[in-house]
Amino acid sequence: MSLLVTAFLDHAREHAPDRQIVDYVDGVCVRRSTYREQDARIRRVAGALVALGVRPGDRVATLAGNHHRHLELYLAVPLAGAVLHTVNLRLDPAEIAYVVDHAEDSVLFLDAALRPAAAPARAARPGMRVVVLDGEPEPGELAYEDLVASGDPLEGPPPRDGDDLAALCYTTGTTGAPKGVGYSHRALYLHTMAAGLADGHALSRRDRVVHLVAMFHANAWGVPLAAFMVGADQVLPGPHPRIADVATIVERERATYLGMVPTLAVDLVEHVRRTGTDLSSLRALVLGGSTPSRELIRAITEDLGVPAFQGWGMTETSPMATFSAPEPDATPEERIEQVRTQGRLLPGLRWRLVDEDGAVVPHDGVSRGELWLRGPWVASSYYRGDRPEAFTDGWLHTGDVATIDPDGRLRVVDRVKDLIKSGGEWISSLALEAALLEAPGVADVAVVAVPHERWQERPVAVVVPAGEGLDPEAVLGALAGRVPRWWCPDRVEVVDALPRTSVGKVDKRALRGALRAGEQKEVL
Amino acid sequence: MSLLVTAFLDHAREHAPDRQIVDYVDGVCVRRSTYREQDARIRRVAGALVALGVRPGDRVATLAGNHHRHLELYLAVPLAGAVLHTVNLRLDPAEIAYVVDHAEDSVLFLDAALRPAAAPARAARPGMRVVVLDGEPEPGELAYEDLVASGDPLEGPPPRDGDDLAALCYTTGTTGAPKGVGYSHRALYLHTMAAGLADGHALSRRDRVVHLVAMFHANAWGVPLAAFMVGADQVLPGPHPRIADVATIVERERATYLGMVPTLAVDLVEHVRRTGTDLSSLRALVLGGSTPSRELIRAITEDLGVPAFQGWGMTETSPMATFSAPEPDATPEERIEQVRTQGRLLPGLRWRLVDEDGAVVPHDGVSRGELWLRGPWVASSYYRGDRPEAFTDGWLHTGDVATIDPDGRLRVVDRVKDLIKSGGEWISSLALEAALLEAPGVADVAVVAVPHERWQERPVAVVVPAGEGLDPEAVLGALAGRVPRWWCPDRVEVVDALPRTSVGKVDKRALRGALRAGEQKEVL
Repeated sequence: MSLLVTAFLDHAREHAPDRQIVDYVDGVCVRRSTYREQDARIRRVAGALVALGVRPGDRVATLAGNHHRHLELYLAVPLAGAVLHTVNLRLDPAEIAYVVDHAEDSVLFLDAALRPAAAPARAARPGMRVVVLDGEPEPGELAYEDLVASGDPLEGPPPRDGDDLAALCYTTGTTGAPKGVGYSHRALYLHTMAAGLADGHALSRRDRVVHLVAMFHANAWGVPLAAFMVGADQVLPGPHPRIADVATIVERERATYLGMVPTLAVDLVEHVRRTGTDLSSLRALVLGGSTPSRELIRAITEDLGVPAFQGWGMTETSPMATFSAPEPDATPEERIEQVRTQGRLLPGLRWRLVDEDGAVVPHDGVSRGELWLRGPWVASSYYRGDRPEAFTDGWLHTGDVATIDPDGRLRVVDRVKDLIKSGGEWISSLALEAALLEAPGVADVAVVAVPHERWQERPVAVVVPAGEGLDPEAVLGALAGRVPRWWCPDRVEVVDALPRTSVGKVDKRALRGALRAGEQKEVL
Repeated sequence: MSLLVTAFLDHAREHAPDRQIVDYVDGVCVRRSTYREQDARIRRVAGALVALGVRPGDRVATLAGNHHRHLELYLAVPLAGAVLHTVNLRLDPAEIAYVVDHAEDSVLFLDAALRPAAAPARAARPGMRVVVLDGEPEPGELAYEDLVASGDPLEGPPPRDGDDLAALCYTTGTTGAPKGVGYSHRALYLHTMAAGLADGHALSRRDRVVHLVAMFHANAWGVPLAAFMVGADQVLPGPHPRIADVATIVERERATYLGMVPTLAVDLVEHVRRTGTDLSSLRALVLGGSTPSRELIRAITEDLGVPAFQGWGMTETSPMATFSAPEPDATPEERIEQVRTQGRLLPGLRWRLVDEDGAVVPHDGVSRGELWLRGPWVASSYYRGDRPEAFTDGWLHTGDVATIDPDGRLRVVDRVKDLIKSGGEWISSLALEAALLEAPGVADVAVVAVPHERWQERPVAVVVPAGEGLDPEAVLGALAGRVPRWWCPDRVEVVDALPRTSVGKVDKRALRGALRAGEQKEVL
């Protein structure tokens, strides 16, 4: 019996027909429907896709925000036997064209507001059908609601196997072209089961989840499929929700589960302090994307009264790979430290740390190595075989440098490519950034390597000040006693903002380039 | 990447090396070891099995109680590529010989005390190697600890596939010969994931489980493998633990999870009332095997202060199929009623109710049908193809008659073969028994059909009195207003004890036979 993600649609319809899918726009509820109603719409869309000529294995793209129609496609596309390709709407139009062309998408579903971003992709694939999700279709486009209205509910889906792809997502690495990660039905099925484990995200029938994580981003952390599986309510915040909207949604919907990046969580804490919004319904605020600061974890736990957790993973791991929860007997201070680690490996996955020579290093909390992962929901190749050097015998090289404690807690130290090699020793840019962030007057910081004649590389700190008159010497002075003296950056550059990639990560490649260009200019 | 249950051994060793496996005998702790130590022993036993000539797919039988060596075999046998056949030690020796011969077991591991039970099986399979788990080997036997000492740890297990069998268990139906249920690695892997779901048994790293359910019985409800997966402590109560021993173990070990049949739970409640044993560490007492009474659920919840749940399943479902937890907002009375249902279907499984004509009946809480199940850990055939009529297109006919509420709660009404057809209408023997159990002076009861010239069948109640002087008329009088008048049994037979099968179920076939024999005698 094949493991198919569409089983979770059946489960939601049969076991939670009256649970809700709720849409918000700008902090206002605009729609409520039930799994019973959503199931009928999803089957119609699947039927319409088959009628449009979509064949098993075809790729169907979305370029859309977080709303119920996007959620419907999460299941309608795999139900039709096709592969859901969620396109990152923050890519620039040329990159969107690249991934749509690389995936050879046969249909594109898009929000009307994103037509400009899709123009080059449409030019590159003139045979691609385009369906606009909202508003009036332009010439050559189909309207989504017409598909829903005209589609015959798909009762007998095409035969599919657990190894068939159900979804596809491109990584937006800061080096090289985007690489596709294909997710088989089986991988997503098992990933969804893992999302319900009591030791992990523990998604359950009692939950009301808010999808703040972008739905184009690595299956939205896997939370939508998990909500179908367990019959949880799902709340979609619509396009560009402000932090005030998020707080309003949690308060009005009595939401229980919310995932977000630390940067947004800082804003949320600040907003709640100012407004007193009631977030007490949350049983879990899960942080992911980068390591949260101690102060953020403390503020969420103590000031908001909401249990804070950290999840870690990447596009290549579907994405949940570890989960960090405090031990039941931890002191408040230990809890913060434990949630700051990337946490424990989810059951079913394997890991190892591998040094520069390819040797496995011990899990002693000190030895560092590149983290390799393997398991039923970890990619063992990229789509179309791109970049095979990222895999060895089915093990994914994550590109993250990490330690693992003897009791199994992961601590990501740096990206392999962001480590700074100075005088034959490694400097962790992440650790240096964490120390610099605690210096007074520093709002944001990135540390990158610049070439150095004697030491090979030396660190340079690029700092965004919190206010006026930041003193670079004072910033460096604040490092004393916090990091080894030789880690101290050679200089501090003050900038208004850090360059970021389309998924909000600091673009260190751009920074390194700018710094080198700056140096050359000085030389000239 | 194949889904293999032995992945959970790797997970326990790497992520919970210091968590404990604890052995008790007669309520006294006799051994503590760690997953690190157990892993080494399990690999040695697997190596010894391969050295003994066990080949992938061979069946390896156990006839043993609940102790660490039996637990080791749960993983050592699949690690060696073989199939663990746990033999029911309560079968009579001829039945043991039947299943060992049917499975063609090549090795038998047995407790020394069970040698007499194994004698006919050994005679039937003279080539079978016999390993005694405890005490001195007799001529022709090997000693388990010699295997552990001599075995080279198996580092490179034979290649196995997720579809290969990992375990085998025979059902002890009250009709016909025992039927084998083979469990693939994949089925047990997914069943183990399901055991960790927050909406189900929710086994987690925080747990200390006690294995009171016999380890020969349907993978001991799947709890041992789940404990390996999550890194929970496991406590083994040894042979024939008395209820006082169980209470002592829970109190001393601060156990968190305990599963048992309602009959034992009644004794446990009584024991705690008398002794004041502290069971407050339990986060879950899961009842399974038959529907618990309201009073039992109330007593566990209120008098013991322990959350009560019900799990339901059968050998053919690995065995967990449903889990019954109260809704978060239920009143105390509603909680009892909700836990009395068989509960909600675990994600990944499908169900339907089918009437006598093969038509699917609605889930309206009233319509009855035979429960059919299907899913990755539900058998779709018996071992060697026995009794193919129990399956239709991959659906298992459970033999249970049930209703399903509109919100998805299962209520098992009766076994198909125990329903009583009277005047063209069905009488539920289970519902009648539940009503009779509430009559004063009734300790135990079974209702069976006897042939009737006019009504086809009529119910007869066989009652075990709680004390002296039970009045059959008073028993029937107590039914007034509780069941339809025409359900009232034609007569009440008073007996000292009910006949039971090897797994403790009332043997209704034997009862029906005895009643008919009695009638014939009266006629003669």
